[in-house]
Amino acid sequence: MSHQIAVIPGDGIGQEVTPAAIDVLDALEVDFEFREGEAGDRVAEETGDPLPEATIELARESDATLFGAAGERAADIILPLREVVGSYANVRPAKAYPGLEAVKPETDLVFIRENTQGVYAQIESQLTDDLATLTRVVTREASRKIAEYGFEYAEEHGYDNVTIAHKANVMQETDGLFLEAAEAVAEERGADYDTELMDALAMKLVMYPEDYDVIITPNLAGDVLSDLAAGLVGGLGLLPSANVGDDNALFEPVHGSAPDIAGQGVANPSAMILSAAMMLDHLDYDDEATRVTDAVETVLAEGPHTPDLGGDASTEAFTAAVIEQL
Amino acid sequence: MSHQIAVIPGDGIGQEVTPAAIDVLDALEVDFEFREGEAGDRVAEETGDPLPEATIELARESDATLFGAAGERAADIILPLREVVGSYANVRPAKAYPGLEAVKPETDLVFIRENTQGVYAQIESQLTDDLATLTRVVTREASRKIAEYGFEYAEEHGYDNVTIAHKANVMQETDGLFLEAAEAVAEERGADYDTELMDALAMKLVMYPEDYDVIITPNLAGDVLSDLAAGLVGGLGLLPSANVGDDNALFEPVHGSAPDIAGQGVANPSAMILSAAMMLDHLDYDDEATRVTDAVETVLAEGPHTPDLGGDASTEAFTAAVIEQL
Ligand SMILES: CC(C)[C@H](C(=O)O)[C@@H](O)C(=O)O
Ligand SMILES: CC(C)[C@H](C(=O)O)[C@@H](O)C(=O)O
Repeated sequence: MSHQIAVIPGDGIGQEVTPAAIDVLDALEVDFEFREGEAGDRVAEETGDPLPEATIELARESDATLFGAAGERAADIILPLREVVGSYANVRPAKAYPGLEAVKPETDLVFIRENTQGVYAQIESQLTDDLATLTRVVTREASRKIAEYGFEYAEEHGYDNVTIAHKANVMQETDGLFLEAAEAVAEERGADYDTELMDALAMKLVMYPEDYDVIITPNLAGDVLSDLAAGLVGGLGLLPSANVGDDNALFEPVHGSAPDIAGQGVANPSAMILSAAMMLDHLDYDDEATRVTDAVETVLAEGPHTPDLGGDASTEAFTAAVIEQL
Repeated sequence: MSHQIAVIPGDGIGQEVTPAAIDVLDALEVDFEFREGEAGDRVAEETGDPLPEATIELARESDATLFGAAGERAADIILPLREVVGSYANVRPAKAYPGLEAVKPETDLVFIRENTQGVYAQIESQLTDDLATLTRVVTREASRKIAEYGFEYAEEHGYDNVTIAHKANVMQETDGLFLEAAEAVAEERGADYDTELMDALAMKLVMYPEDYDVIITPNLAGDVLSDLAAGLVGGLGLLPSANVGDDNALFEPVHGSAPDIAGQGVANPSAMILSAAMMLDHLDYDDEATRVTDAVETVLAEGPHTPDLGGDASTEAFTAAVIEQL
């Protein structure tokens, strides 16, 4: 079955790592049709809009979207795109890949972050010049849905520990509802789980990351805790992510547009290629997903390395090495 | 000048570490009059109320309050008490004390956490059985006040780096106002500062804690990031905190009531004694504050140690050693 894939390189090194991922996908026996769309600071300068309607349409009608990186206007691009593809689950593995110095190399966990509500509903009012409010929204439906996804993900990927993060001691109604709904899903499935207050979890993740596998979290908690975990494994540089909806999905590296090294052809495309591997997994090309992930890990372990890891390989040379390992 | 100090031991090891801190204060030449109040699970069982009106009154009319620890009902005790003393600043040092294994021993920073608003305004509505909302509130006044306190604190304590944490790319109106107000305070004072998105800061704190001194944060961000930093220095066990208002203040260890070891007389009273030292500093007993802090650090370095640090000293023996070092 042919899949139509929207490709949105975006800003800075997005323009370099996205073609690298496409090259890797092209080297596989998969039936993808790629269509490119524009987004980011450059198109914003030309048209005033960082995310043109045509790009939104492209993402909407594709089976999946590969997104590179965004610069200054990241929130104005990535948040609408997540909504356009109907993604309710933001999947963020944090694992120490070989070749990276890590604060906690034993870290190997996956955040399943609710991707539609909480403070990201972005319902705000500037009531007076000196007073602003934000309405945080939590529904049972969205909470059940992310919990279902999280427990399913844990089962499919062979993870034992599932933790539900929350702050229901302070946000009693909203996170209370999130927690109640997520626990109900666990009970119905007969699944084991733990719950953790998000502040206590921040501390425990720093001290004992090996105790955790899959962490189901509200939106902002997932944003902060997954970046914390990125710190444990050596930074955002190598981390992929998926934004998964019922009929559509978007895959993006966790890193940004890295303007300091953009245009030099030396960006490390690992996170982007690993995001493409998450797309393969999502589209049920399980073998291909594993082949790509293994190839990236091998090259990260054996070299050649891009400058961020102390080597002098170009993006192209790194990508060629990955393709050779496939 | 005599100060009236409310003493609320609370639950579990609060009953053991609070008298230890009082013993240390008694060993100094300070004119404190202590009055004890009840709070916690035990009084809740007897009266249905974990924080009796008499205790609230006591805290309100005292110059400062020492609070031990709370159990299950922590949020129902500590949040109202913070409000009763009018505390707008939650001051949380995170520093690796000698004797503790630390993930990042070079950590030495202080969170200045806004203590009155954000999601802690606790304005929530269960709109239907399946939908709940929370109204997050940010005012210019409270944002200016915490920023003033933070920059003043940095100046008084000789810290160079001040960082303002926020998530204004998503919470554009509310954290936008917080950021704008805090930056305005910095400009007026001619003070240097950086700003960081709270997610990026979570990552950087894990990787480069030595880059930070004073971090001014909204309420929930401070809750999570300060626990993260506790993880960097070996856990909550030794960390003190202050809740500072204009005419009143409350001092509490960051740890909880530790029901697993309560009643055995072996709790480590360091965090409580260091919280008492923060109280001394706040009441302008600067020398005494330094003497107490130094004494605790010496005993932590040289022993005797309580069981949490691998020793077999009792709470009493540890406290006696601190008093001897004064
Ligand atoms: C750019 C920003 C809006 C985004 C978020 O907060 O979700 C980013 O931090 C992320 O985690 O992908
Ligand atoms: C007990 C709880 C309400 C409290 C908070 O969230 O502020 C605690 O986590 C803290 O940081 O002191």
